[in-house]
This record gives sequence, C-alpha cells and structure tokens, in this order.
Amino acid sequence: MTTKQEAAAAVRDAKVRLGLSWAQVAEAVGRPVAWTTAALLGQHPMPAAEATAAAALLELDDNVVMALRLQPTRGALDTAVPVDPTIYRFYEVLQVYGPTIKELIHEQFGDGIMSAINFRMDVKKVADPAGDRVVVTLDGKFLPYQW
Amino acid sequence: MTTKQEAAAAVRDAKVRLGLSWAQVAEAVGRPVAWTTAALLGQHPMPAAEATAAAALLELDDNVVMALRLQPTRGALDTAVPVDPTIYRFYEVLQVYGPTIKELIHEQFGDGIMSAINFRMDVKKVADPAGDRVVVTLDGKFLPYQW
Amino acid sequence: MTTKQEAAAAVRDAKVRLGLSWAQVAEAVGRPVAWTTAALLGQHPMPAAEATAAAALLELDDNVVMALRLQPTRGALDTAVPVDPTIYRFYEVLQVYGPTIKELIHEQFGDGIMSAINFRMDVKKVADPAGDRVVVTLDGKFLPYQW
Amino acid sequence: MTTKQEAAAAVRDAKVRLGLSWAQVAEAVGRPVAWTTAALLGQHPMPAAEATAAAALLELDDNVVMALRLQPTRGALDTAVPVDPTIYRFYEVLQVYGPTIKELIHEQFGDGIMSAINFRMDVKKVADPAGDRVVVTLDGKFLPYQW
Amino acid sequence: MTTKQEAAAAVRDAKVRLGLSWAQVAEAVGRPVAWTTAALLGQHPMPAAEATAAAALLELDDNVVMALRLQPTRGALDTAVPVDPTIYRFYEVLQVYGPTIKELIHEQFGDGIMSAINFRMDVKKVADPAGDRVVVTLDGKFLPYQW
Amino acid sequence: MTTKQEAAAAVRDAKVRLGLSWAQVAEAVGRPVAWTTAALLGQHPMPAAEATAAAALLELDDNVVMALRLQPTRGALDTAVPVDPTIYRFYEVLQVYGPTIKELIHEQFGDGIMSAINFRMDVKKVADPAGDRVVVTLDGKFLPYQW
Amino acid sequence: MTTKQEAAAAVRDAKVRLGLSWAQVAEAVGRPVAWTTAALLGQHPMPAAEATAAAALLELDDNVVMALRLQPTRGALDTAVPVDPTIYRFYEVLQVYGPTIKELIHEQFGDGIMSAINFRMDVKKVADPAGDRVVVTLDGKFLPYQW
Amino acid sequence: MTTKQEAAAAVRDAKVRLGLSWAQVAEAVGRPVAWTTAALLGQHPMPAAEATAAAALLELDDNVVMALRLQPTRGALDTAVPVDPTIYRFYEVLQVYGPTIKELIHEQFGDGIMSAINFRMDVKKVADPAGDRVVVTLDGKFLPYQW
Amino acid sequence: MTTKQEAAAAVRDAKVRLGLSWAQVAEAVGRPVAWTTAALLGQHPMPAAEATAAAALLELDDNVVMALRLQPTRGALDTAVPVDPTIYRFYEVLQVYGPTIKELIHEQFGDGIMSAINFRMDVKKVADPAGDRVVVTLDGKFLPYQW
Amino acid sequence: MTTKQEAAAAVRDAKVRLGLSWAQVAEAVGRPVAWTTAALLGQHPMPAAEATAAAALLELDDNVVMALRLQPTRGALDTAVPVDPTIYRFYEVLQVYGPTIKELIHEQFGDGIMSAINFRMDVKKVADPAGDRVVVTLDGKFLPYQW
Repeated sequence: MTTKQEAAAAVRDAKVRLGLSWAQVAEAVGRPVAWTTAALLGQHPMPAAEATAAAALLELDDNVVMALRLQPTRGALDTAVPVDPTIYRFYEVLQVYGPTIKELIHEQFGDGIMSAINFRMDVKKVADPAGDRVVVTLDGKFLPYQW
Repeated sequence: MTTKQEAAAAVRDAKVRLGLSWAQVAEAVGRPVAWTTAALLGQHPMPAAEATAAAALLELDDNVVMALRLQPTRGALDTAVPVDPTIYRFYEVLQVYGPTIKELIHEQFGDGIMSAINFRMDVKKVADPAGDRVVVTLDGKFLPYQW
Repeated sequence: MTTKQEAAAAVRDAKVRLGLSWAQVAEAVGRPVAWTTAALLGQHPMPAAEATAAAALLELDDNVVMALRLQPTRGALDTAVPVDPTIYRFYEVLQVYGPTIKELIHEQFGDGIMSAINFRMDVKKVADPAGDRVVVTLDGKFLPYQW
Repeated sequence: MTTKQEAAAAVRDAKVRLGLSWAQVAEAVGRPVAWTTAALLGQHPMPAAEATAAAALLELDDNVVMALRLQPTRGALDTAVPVDPTIYRFYEVLQVYGPTIKELIHEQFGDGIMSAINFRMDVKKVADPAGDRVVVTLDGKFLPYQW
Repeated sequence: MTTKQEAAAAVRDAKVRLGLSWAQVAEAVGRPVAWTTAALLGQHPMPAAEATAAAALLELDDNVVMALRLQPTRGALDTAVPVDPTIYRFYEVLQVYGPTIKELIHEQFGDGIMSAINFRMDVKKVADPAGDRVVVTLDGKFLPYQW
Repeated sequence: MTTKQEAAAAVRDAKVRLGLSWAQVAEAVGRPVAWTTAALLGQHPMPAAEATAAAALLELDDNVVMALRLQPTRGALDTAVPVDPTIYRFYEVLQVYGPTIKELIHEQFGDGIMSAINFRMDVKKVADPAGDRVVVTLDGKFLPYQW
Repeated sequence: MTTKQEAAAAVRDAKVRLGLSWAQVAEAVGRPVAWTTAALLGQHPMPAAEATAAAALLELDDNVVMALRLQPTRGALDTAVPVDPTIYRFYEVLQVYGPTIKELIHEQFGDGIMSAINFRMDVKKVADPAGDRVVVTLDGKFLPYQW
Repeated sequence: MTTKQEAAAAVRDAKVRLGLSWAQVAEAVGRPVAWTTAALLGQHPMPAAEATAAAALLELDDNVVMALRLQPTRGALDTAVPVDPTIYRFYEVLQVYGPTIKELIHEQFGDGIMSAINFRMDVKKVADPAGDRVVVTLDGKFLPYQW
Repeated sequence: MTTKQEAAAAVRDAKVRLGLSWAQVAEAVGRPVAWTTAALLGQHPMPAAEATAAAALLELDDNVVMALRLQPTRGALDTAVPVDPTIYRFYEVLQVYGPTIKELIHEQFGDGIMSAINFRMDVKKVADPAGDRVVVTLDGKFLPYQW
Repeated sequence: MTTKQEAAAAVRDAKVRLGLSWAQVAEAVGRPVAWTTAALLGQHPMPAAEATAAAALLELDDNVVMALRLQPTRGALDTAVPVDPTIYRFYEVLQVYGPTIKELIHEQFGDGIMSAINFRMDVKKVADPAGDRVVVTLDGKFLPYQW
C-alpha cells in the first residue's frame, strides 16, 4: 500500500515532469491552492472526488488516490526548528513577534487562541515599487477559553 | 542600568496599573500597534521620540527610556518550541503548512524568501456569523537568492 | 508587582498554613475545583470576583488578587517530559495510547481534534473492591478541520 | 519474522481495504475498542484467541498473528513532544493541567499515583447543542507510595 | 516559607556540622535508612513524627519540619542523563542491561512492570576477598498490565 | 557478515519459534541467565563455547555464532530516557533515589563508585501475600577514587 | 526520479572518478566556484544551461540534470552543531565572535542584518611566510529593519 | 571580585552612557576593533596596558581592569543555535555553505582546517549602488592534519 | 555554609589576587598539580590536612576549608558538549578517535575499560623545534568485564 | 561507489575473518597503529600506498582502496554523549577534569589550545602489580591565540 509520504513524492515528481503549477492542480481539484498543496503534501485527507481529480491531472494511479484519502498523522518539519531559510523566516517571526501576537489577540478578543483547525491561509504576491512583497494571511476562528 | 527585559516588565506593570491598551500606547507613540508592542516588549530599539512618548504615557522614568532605545538581542520565546497555547498554534501552523508556504512562495516568486526584516505584520479581529476570526497578516519583502 | 508565579507560591503556602483543601477554596470561589486549582496555580486568568474570594479565604493581599487576574503565559511543566511520577504516568498514557486516541477520535468524529480550550476536566475517586481508582475525565469540544 | 510494527501496518492497510472500523474489529475480538486498537497498533501483546480473531476478520496470515502475540517494547510517539495536532492537544492538557491533576490526586488520595498499568481508558462522543464533545476517560488504580 | 530544597540543604549542612551519619538519622527517625535519606533530600513527604524526630536530632527549626512534611514534586537529577560518576554507573547499568531486565521480568512474571511506587530499596556493603562490593537491591511489587 | 543486532534479532525469533525461555538458553550455555540474556542481546562478547552452545539450541548458523563472539559497542536504549514502561521504572528509580544511593555509597564506602564492569545482576520473583515482588539485585565491586 | 541528495552523491563520485576539481567544474559551468559547489551539493537550484554543462563534464545523465534544476530544501549539516573539525571551526567562530559581529554590524549600519540570501562568499588561499592562510569572505547586502 | 560577564556589562553601559563607539574604544586601546570588541565582551584576556586604556576611556574602576585581564572560558551564544536574527544569518551560512567551504578548503589546501585560534576577522561596510554590503572576512592559518 | 562552587570561586579569586600558580598551590598541598587543581575546583573531596594547607596559602577561612572537604557531586561542564575551544579540542579528540581508542584497548587488554576512578592524569609542556607541545597523559587501571 | 562507512565495515569484517590485529595491519601499512586504525575506520584519508597495502593484507578490492583514500567528513560518535562504557569513560574524564586541563594548559603555555589537528595519540598497556594500566597519551602542538 502506498503511504502518504510516497504519494506526496509521486505528486511532486509528476508535477515537475508535467510542468504543472500548484495553482493548476488546485484549479483541477476545485479547492484553494494552499489547501490543495497541503493536502497533496500529505497534511490533509482528501475527499474521493478531489483525490481522483488530482490523480487524473497528475497521471497517478489508484494506489496514490487511496493514499491521498487516508487520515494523516500531521507534521511536516524534519527538525523542531526548521533549517530551510524560506521556512525558517516564519519561525523567526514567531521568535521575534510571538508574544506580540499573543498580547494583541488577548487585547482584542480576551483569553483564548486563534484556531489552527478552523483555519485557512493564503500566500499572495503584492507588487510594490520597492520590490514585490510576500503577504501570508493566517485566518483562524477565535476560540475563547471556556470551561 | 535598566535592561530591556526590566523595561518590558515595567511597561507591562504600568499598562495594567493604568488600565491602558496596547492600541492606546501605540497611538501615543504614533506607530502601528504591532510594532509598538514588539518594541516595548524589547524586540526593537525605539527612537528617542517614541521611547519618550511611551514613557510619558506609562509614567516611567528615564532609565526605562534609555533601555527602550537600546539595540536588542532579539528572540522572545522561552523554549525552542513554544508551550503557551496561544503562541503554540502559530508553531503548529508552521508544522502543518510550512512546506506548503515554501512551495507557494517558490511558485509565485521563484527561489527566495519572505524577509522577516523588511517586514510588517498585523493582528485583526474580523466579525463572522460563525464566530469572530483572528486574521494575522505577515507582509515581508520578497528577497530572491542572488549571488 | 507580584507575578503569577509568586501568587501561586503564596496560595500554596497559605493553603498549607490554613489547612485548607483545593475543594474548600473552590467552594469559596464558586467554580469547579479543577478550574480553581489551575487558575490559582497561574494557568488561567481569574475574574475579579473569583480572585477576591480566593484571596479573602487565603488571607492574601491585593497584589496577589491583581496577579491572579492577569493573563497568563501558560505551561506548567519544568521539562518537556515530566519527571514527577504522578505527572509522568499521564505522559506515559500519551506514549502508549496517543495514536489509539487519535484513531478513535477520527473514527467517531472524522478529521479533527478534541479542543483543549473549550475544555473541562475532572479528577474523581471511585471506590473499587480491588482498590480505589483515579478517574480523570477530559472533556473537550470536537473541532473538525474546516478551511 | 514479522515485527509488531509491520503487523500494525498490515492491520491498518487491511482495515482501510476492507472498510472496517476499530469498533467492528473490537467486536470480533471481543475486547474493548481502545484496548483492541492499542493492541493492534503494537502496544499490547494479544492472547492467541484475540490475535486469531483479529487476523481472521482482517484476512491476515499467521505471521501477523504471531507478531500480534509478541511482548511489545511500548512507546508510540515519534518524538518526545508529539507534533500531530490531534495528539498534541493531550500533551497541551498535560502542560496546562499536569500540576493541577497532581494536586487533586494528592488531595483526594494522599501521596501516590494513578497507575498506567492497572488502567483502562475510553473515548466517547457526547452530543451537545453547542457541538459534539470528545470525552476521554482515564481510569487507573490508585497506587499509594508504600515502602 | 521554607521549600523542600532549602530544607534538604539545611539537613545536609546540619549533618556535616554535627558529624551525623544517615544511619544515625534514620535510627532517630525510626525508618529504613534509604527511605529516610530520600525523604530528607526532599523525595518523600515525612509524617509529622518522623519530621520532628529528624529536626530534633539535626537541631533544625519548625519551618524545616513543615517543609519536610510537604508533598514533593519528585525528581532529583539535574540533567536527564546524570553526570556524577557514582550516579552515572546506574544509568550505564540501564543502558547495558535495561532490555535484559525487561526480558527477565516478562519471562518470570508475564506482561507488566516492577512498581517504583510500591517499592523499597537498600544499599549494602558486602565484604569480598577481591574487594568490597556495593549491593543495591531494588524490590518492587509486580504490576501486571490489567485493563 | 552478520551484525550483533541481526544476531540478536535471530535469537529472539528462534526463541519464540522454539518456545524456549532465557532460563533454558542460559542453562544450555552454562552461564547465569542475566549474563546470557544480555550477551545474546548483543551487550557482551560470547566466548566460542558459549556462542556455539546457544546457536546449537536455537538452531542458528555459524554467522550468528561469529556475530555473538564479536566485541560489542554497548548501549541498548533507543532514546536517552527510556520510553517502555517496564524499563522506564528503573529510570524513575534513578530520578527519585539516585542521590540517595550516592549518599549511602559514600557513607558506607567513602568516595568512589559501584563498578558497572566488575558487576553482576539478577532478577528474581519473590512471593508475597500482598502480591509477587520483582527483586533486582545490582552487585558491583566498590572502586575508591584513587590517584 | 533522482533526488538532489542522489545527484550530489553522483557528482562527488564522478568528480573523484574523473579527477576533476570544483574549480574545473565551475569553469565549465561558468559560475563562481563557491556557488557551483553549493549548487552541485544540492543547496541551490541550477538553471538548465548550468546543470547541463555540469552533467556533460561529469558524464552524468538527464535524471541528474533534472535533479540539479529542482528547488532545494536547504540545510546541509547532519547535526545542529557540526562535528567535522573543518566545519566546526566556523561554528566556533560564531560562538566566540558572534556577538562581536553583531555589535560591529549595528555600529556601522544601524539595526539590521547581513543578508544570507543576497549573498556571495569566497574561499581563498593567501600565502604567508608564517604559513598559508584560509581567507573566507562573507559578503551580503545589509538589510535594515524596516516596518 | 568582578567577573568577566559583569565587566562586559559595565563596558556596554559605559559605552552607551558616554556615547562612544567600539571604533573609538579600539583606537584608545590600540588594537583592531573586532579584537577589542571581543575582548571587552569577555572572549579574550586583555594585556594590562590595553585593559587600563579601555577602563580609562570608559571611566571604569580597577576591578573591571582585573576582570578584563582574566583568562576567559570562551563561548558567547545563549543557545547552541543562535536566535537573534543578526547572528542567526551566520549560522544559516554554515547550514547552507558549510560543506561547500569544507570542499574548497580541501581542494586548495589538502586535508586540514582553518584555525580559529591563529585567526583574525573584520567586519566592513562596502558601498554598493544596489545597497551597502556587510563584508565579513574570516582569516585563519591553514593547519594541515599532521600526525 | 559555603558550597563547593563558592569555595572554587574563592580559590580562583585568591589565586589571582596573590599571584599564585596551581603548581605553587599543589606544592603547598603536597599532592600532584592536576589532582590539586581538580580538587580545588570542586571535583574531589580534600582531606583535612590538604584543605587546610591550601586555605593557609590562599588566605581563605574555615568555611572554605569545610567546603573543600565535602564530598562533591562531580561534573564540571556547563553544557553536554563543551563550548570553550581549549576544552572542546578534547571533545573533538573523542569524536575523531573515540572508536579507535576503544579498538586499541580491546586489542591490547580484551573486553573492558580504562577506569576513570582508579586514574591519574598529567598535563606537560614538551619543547619541540616545530613548536611546544601539550602532552596530556591519561592513566587508568584496566578493568575487565567480569561477572 | 563504496562509501568510507562501507569500507570501514569491510575492514572490520576482513580483520575478524583473517584473524588480524590492528597492530599487524599498521605494520603492513607502515604507520602508527592509532593513526592506521582511525584511518581505516574512516577518520583520515589514506595516501594511495597505505590504502593499497591495507587492502592487500585485508584482501579487499579497489573500490575499498578508493574509499579509504577519500577525504572524510569526520566524527565517529553515534550520539553527542557516547553510550559505550569504554568510550564513555573518556567523556567522564572531560566532565571531571576538563576545566583542570584548561587551567594547566593556560598556566604552562598562556592563552591557547592543544591542537587536535597537529596531533598524535597512543594507547599503551603498562604493567602494574596492582593491575595493568591503560595509558593514553594525547600529544598536540600548542597553538597560542594570535590575532
């Protein structure tokens, strides 16, 4: 049986071989690009229809479809603190601004958290005369501490 | 001499004692609330005018002003992986979506990173019938790998 | 200003000195005993009325009341893996049964988590001819993964 | 010879392939669902009858039966602190409420621990107008420190 | 209020100052020497009579008595792997013979553990023509895995 | 060439297949059961006669004999702090009683250690009306610090 | 599909087999030697022309070319603190001089960092009567903290 | 007696209070600025003349002079992997280019290392139309492996 | 009561203040210099005569004498892997030559260890035309594995 | 292509199979036994003549010769702190005597280190009526800190 890791590797290979973008795959799947990418990398279980659509576009077989549908054990970093610079910068944001984010959430919402489960995110390119900007939006439901 | 950690503690105490919000302090300082909060927590050096304005509102003395102006050694987490649930959720986002963010940055921008230095962020409350949402925007300049 | 850690230490000392139980303190506070204990140990902010009631019973001053009301940075273990045997057994449960709990949550609820925020817990003594049993109930809202 | 890890993987694969639930497997085995799941995931040795019943339902061969019967070296987490969000929430409960549980055990029982050996647990779905709840019951014999 | 750590330090100091042995203290306390030593080092709560007897012999005040009676948070090593050679050798025994001990417990008793709670231990000097031997006896109740 | 790890796995497999106990193997080998178990698990080099006797009983070939005779690199735990509950309890004993053992060794012997090299150990079952007891005896030569 | 790690191994093997230096490969590729080495070791994606030129010189096939062109997940150390002495010395420089470098950057440039993205480096041999010197130049764009 | 850490803190405070730069202090001391900064931060012992000159300019007393002259135990990072972004970038260089540097040293010099003891370094600002550049030069004697 | 750490600090301070060398202290104490240094740094208990002689020369009081006589908990490194370059080189020797030393001990002595308890060491300066050499001799009794 | 690890394994296997000692191999190679052992275990590159001589004696093929000649990435311990008792004792020496060695090097040589690069070592058996002694000599050039 194909594991979700093997399915993710097959997806990456096919994507390069076929010259497809995540945006194109997401369009075929009919879901937002960030969700689709995360799901194909093995971080979300895919419903049958979405898994089949992805496999069709990427020319992958039924074993991969089955693997994409499985419930994952989530967690995608190789080490507790990420080493790749593109990913590390987000860890650095947490190191520098983590307590600031906590203060502002508590000030605006009271005691609680931003859900990472009832959650969506987006990565956008915003043109700027001083150089394009990466704008990442993290959007999660506020969950108040409630006994 | 007052350290930045002692200054941050004095700021927190005064803020509670005087019943002020970070938003009110930021308004007095004349800078965005996330920047102001991070700076007062010791993660950015404050220019003299901003440090003085904050100290005036918070009724803190010149030693605190001096400390707020110092160059920090940045890094605000007590442990490599944060334990507080409000902060942890952002680490969890990194664990689940880190490689997804990396893929999408490379797809839209090519090889490079989102700067965490030429960077601004914001925490907003967005009303939603299914429950208010925490929307955190991370906005950094794209830096292409360039030899 | 008194920190939440200092307040927790003052609470423990007073409780021993006055010979009070957590159950008695919780009754005075008017909240469940597990919530009250966690709050007095610094893991929840206490509303003014509850903090005042606790301080009155425990003969503690206004600085402690103020500290009990503060928003905490949560996390109560000294090390990532707890060393005290009474606490360690719960970590051991996680090591032995963690993936089992995950399987059963997914089987009964689908993809998602038990909230540790919209959450209550309880520790009970259940008599048993073969020896009393400790019954800990963890009761959290199911949160489905929802984009 | 088949290892317990290979047996667990074979069980998971068969379960998906045959569309069986843990509850159905547990019924065939004749033991509680949490025990059965943990045992099939390799955390408990299975008596011959139970192992044979599970293998029959899951259409697995004698090597798997033999592996299921072996004494395990227990421990099911990949990292000391779990990364998967569904499992992590239970670690978070330990971080926030660990010392509270310890206090309440000592208050009700005296010096000692909840056994994780003479122990049973259960995961239940409890309907609630505000959303279904995951209720996990940990039920272990109290063991007093006894020289 | 005196902490158990401060009480342990006071005990050690008094013991050196008064030239007493652990054996003498244990005799005054009326409990086995290993239990007494562990208790005075802060790893067991002492009943009032034992704490008072120890304090009388060691000429320590009531604050120490109170501290010795408190419920401890157990765990006496400074680092996860001990560094002091006298203690390290026991960790080395675990590294070399841990799985052997596990095999032999399972062979003689079935699936289960040696309790470290219903437990006693002893350190003895055994004369031997080839050099005195340290004989440490660990004696704990067998606890079978029991659902 | 067979490694000691492969030889240990072959031993375990054969032992289960042939329904032999460590005690039976030790008897065939002519050495104490704890030594024999540790050696077959790869923690001691076996003399030719012992290795051959073990292999004969366990129906293993000459490559295994050769591997059993090799000098090991010792150390049998997968992680610095063991996770399996049966092994963990001995680590817990070290956490709770390590400094006590050190005190008692120094009190009875002076400055030095219990050798883990000139060392033997034993695991025994001792009947007790309150439940059988696991008695582990660690018996090592005292080595005084000697310049 | 060939991974970047496999491609790097193939490059190293071919380089030894063909007796080529990194300088010779870099010349064929038409890029600086440090960039070329890093890219062939899998730390930079190579444009098609450079990958093809390298593969031609090193007699490697199209799968390697494809792998060399892929976007890497960067990070080349096996452990967080490097163990190889030639690499360790640079970690030691960081331990001894890290805060000094930070002070001098802030003194000359203000608050900000040396970019490791808009960055080039070079390793040179400088003759010296007292022994040749290794001169490593790290040259990155200054990035001021800018909100 | 003043420790080197206290002396370093006194130096930093005085430097801010008097509005001096490291370059000015280095000029007074008569040594390169990087060496002087590292020495005043406690990473090198200072000869009497240099320590006295620094103390005179910084208006510090003889205890500080004595501390600056002491042999240090070197190592200036708070954590094995630095957290401050200005310092982290140099760790990142090591992660991305460490094996490249190793390859180029071996190619140009043979088997050996760049000494971090017979070593000097420099941080320079180099104007560039695309933005100023931080140029750090690490310059150490090559030490061949020599038995 | 003075701790061994405080005594070690007092010894270091006095040694600098009085301009004494470890060799001079060792001569007054009448023991080898390496033993004396280790003992004064808190790694060995000193007999009364030696402690008194050291204190007399170093002009330290009776509290220090008492502390020097106490049984230490040994272990002198701040981190598991030492950071100071002078100490690190010995860790590096272990990384590069550890298994070589093991092979040679086993080849010459059979299965066993070099005792670090029945042990002496020495640091010597050996003149060499190519530069003075540090010669460290580690000399421990061979202990064969003996059941 | 054969890696250095595979070559080391082949060397160990051949050595056992042919009943050769490291001393005999070193004699055939014509280099000191410690250097030869370390090189064959993959910690030093071997010149062609030495590699060929070793391979001839050990009846190994040209791929092994090539591997033995490669530049290694050094570091031979599986974990940062070694677990094997024979190797661990040298780590223990570092824990107990590391700062002592540092003090004595600085006292005899001034500020600097013992080189682990311009370095040789030796393991000798020294007969002693009280039991044979392992004498390990570490002999490295002194390198003064020199800017």
